[in-house]
Amino acid sequence: MSFLNVPEDSDFSIYNFPFGIAKYKGKVFVASRIGDSVINMDVLNSKGYLKDFNLKEEVFNNFKLNLFISQGKKTCSAVRQQLIDLFGNDSSSLANNQSDLNEILIPTEEVEMLLPVAIGDYTDFYSSIEHATNVGKMFRDPENALLPNWKHLPVGYHGRSSSIIVSGQDIRRPKGQTKPNPDENPVFGPCKLLDFELEMAFITYPGKKLGESISTSEADNYLFGMCLFNDWSARDIQKWEYVPLGPFLAKNFASSVSPWIVMMEALEPFRLKGPVQDPKVLPYLEYSGEKNIDIDLKVYIEPEGSFESLVSHSNYKYMYWNMNQQLAHHTVNGCNINAGDLYASGTISGPTEDSYGSMLELSWGGQKSLKLVDGSERKFIQDGDTVIMRGRCEKNGISLGFGEVKSKVLSAY
Amino acid sequence: MSFLNVPEDSDFSIYNFPFGIAKYKGKVFVASRIGDSVINMDVLNSKGYLKDFNLKEEVFNNFKLNLFISQGKKTCSAVRQQLIDLFGNDSSSLANNQSDLNEILIPTEEVEMLLPVAIGDYTDFYSSIEHATNVGKMFRDPENALLPNWKHLPVGYHGRSSSIIVSGQDIRRPKGQTKPNPDENPVFGPCKLLDFELEMAFITYPGKKLGESISTSEADNYLFGMCLFNDWSARDIQKWEYVPLGPFLAKNFASSVSPWIVMMEALEPFRLKGPVQDPKVLPYLEYSGEKNIDIDLKVYIEPEGSFESLVSHSNYKYMYWNMNQQLAHHTVNGCNINAGDLYASGTISGPTEDSYGSMLELSWGGQKSLKLVDGSERKFIQDGDTVIMRGRCEKNGISLGFGEVKSKVLSAY
Repeated sequence: MSFLNVPEDSDFSIYNFPFGIAKYKGKVFVASRIGDSVINMDVLNSKGYLKDFNLKEEVFNNFKLNLFISQGKKTCSAVRQQLIDLFGNDSSSLANNQSDLNEILIPTEEVEMLLPVAIGDYTDFYSSIEHATNVGKMFRDPENALLPNWKHLPVGYHGRSSSIIVSGQDIRRPKGQTKPNPDENPVFGPCKLLDFELEMAFITYPGKKLGESISTSEADNYLFGMCLFNDWSARDIQKWEYVPLGPFLAKNFASSVSPWIVMMEALEPFRLKGPVQDPKVLPYLEYSGEKNIDIDLKVYIEPEGSFESLVSHSNYKYMYWNMNQQLAHHTVNGCNINAGDLYASGTISGPTEDSYGSMLELSWGGQKSLKLVDGSERKFIQDGDTVIMRGRCEKNGISLGFGEVKSKVLSAY
Repeated sequence: MSFLNVPEDSDFSIYNFPFGIAKYKGKVFVASRIGDSVINMDVLNSKGYLKDFNLKEEVFNNFKLNLFISQGKKTCSAVRQQLIDLFGNDSSSLANNQSDLNEILIPTEEVEMLLPVAIGDYTDFYSSIEHATNVGKMFRDPENALLPNWKHLPVGYHGRSSSIIVSGQDIRRPKGQTKPNPDENPVFGPCKLLDFELEMAFITYPGKKLGESISTSEADNYLFGMCLFNDWSARDIQKWEYVPLGPFLAKNFASSVSPWIVMMEALEPFRLKGPVQDPKVLPYLEYSGEKNIDIDLKVYIEPEGSFESLVSHSNYKYMYWNMNQQLAHHTVNGCNINAGDLYASGTISGPTEDSYGSMLELSWGGQKSLKLVDGSERKFIQDGDTVIMRGRCEKNGISLGFGEVKSKVLSAY
């Protein structure tokens, strides 16, 4: 237990200690969090509580996490352990120094959280078999919903880094070209089928040189942590543009991330086995150990001036392809990765209808409406709607969470 | 004419003045070029020759062009004009100061050229109608080679920034999953159908805010300059992986750029009309003026220890979609752009068989061989081959070029 008063159901329990970028009284710095308090890592470091690591001031006095992440797994992991020791122990050097605590801890509500990393490259996978099957049934052939390559490799594509924003920032409904009538010319206007995609993303440590690969067993050394990810999608734009080179304007207008990156070390207690992969994968995609993670995921829609309605209840454990396989595949051709790259899972759908991770699937292509608690109905996302995603892990009395990713949709310009 | 001895056929004539990043005696700095001399912009600035612009030292004392580009079109354009005035005029303040010239100019062969920009995002278009038609004929339906959306929008997709390298750096043959036999399981191994793609790319100035768009008429204010771009491609990997989300490992193992970015101002004399676009495009893609550019492009293969063979002779003027349309389309949904982003054209093929911009097209899917001057034959690229691309503009006695992009292929690890 911590000497601090951490609410029992807090996402930011003594088992978490995620990292992010905070702004307080005009200053921007690397932060961690315990309960309802933000930990100013820059002040913690300057007061000598991290002196064993010999880190330069700019590692924590920084507007992005990249330099911290660039210190590598050994150091980052040890810094987190130091936070556990400092804040979880009544007799720690910090526990009885109220003056230092007053400078190091800031009430959450007084802090603005910023985009945690400078994302050099962003890749989006497509690794939920339920999602890929649902989309295949709707858009392609219901009898052959999964494409031939899907079970042989973790399908992925490159996304746009510049438009990744942090939770709390509004998004603008995109405009674009669509073809509502197959026999008529395409038209231009605001997207009519705006959707969310419930995803999780991982952030990487520095990788190897261009031309080298990271195996599934090495991958653990390159995974820094995870966050929630809402991959906003314009379904009508996507349908017209995506053959043959994949999604482009249907996705790159915005993606929202949660501000706190939960380190892999915090997620270890929630590991479990992934689904049996049949057919057998090629040797470079084989792995050992429990590589899936039990993360309970929920999506809510909050109409303007109204209340939150739960619209999806899924879990990260459903992933067919795990992060180790994704990273091994991504680098098997020699593609290099950098500190702070972001790799998203693809929409995380579960096996039941209430666990689908997008409105496209929940409304089955707009064929049915979801009823919200205020009595209104949704097939897709309307202007003024706020979409909120939350993630939480609980096992054997240990619990933590990811906070939330929350964005409101403004009408098109 | 310049007071310097500029070879008459130099790519780096008095009409060019491109920008790049040079390394000389351990120092890295922003550079320009005239004839066979590299211009150290940092020294030029520190000696007061650019004092009217009031630029901070780090604009030129930098390992990337991004901060210079971030000054915007007005300043960058004026800096280039100042170079023309200083180096093109016998009576300039610099012309008669041999001591300053000795410090500012460095022989090209003593300089190493580095990657010119930190590329935040990289987009690859697919804007040559001949290339799209050829690929469609080979891979899809010869009778309906162009997909329905192709003439309505400039198809594009996101690529990988981390693996973009500068000319002179070797590339490693990628390994990956392919499915050579439709009735058997996929296999893993080195790519067998390695290819180049002859492309050009443009680099952008800082853009507007997320959610806003750049029109075709505004686009000129956001185009900094252009370079040569070799979008290396693994055709066998591509074929198996690319449906439905587009090319991924078939492309992201490496792309090579030429080190000098030629500013749009230098290319103005070579403007010409683009092809008639039929059907008529939607209003947001309409444009006025001459937006295509006459850039003569050549591709050579140089086998290990042998000579260069010309294998393709194309031209940037063949582009169906121009840069203004590409940028307007890319941002019409509110996607934001940053200084130093890279936007490639897609393979630039012309109408004749000798003008195709990839081995895939030149060998028509491997059905025929190209004979090289040393007597050897190629259907695709072999280990030890160096691929060289050059680009040049000439009109009414004005000429300039892009230098070259040159990379050698090493065998797979």
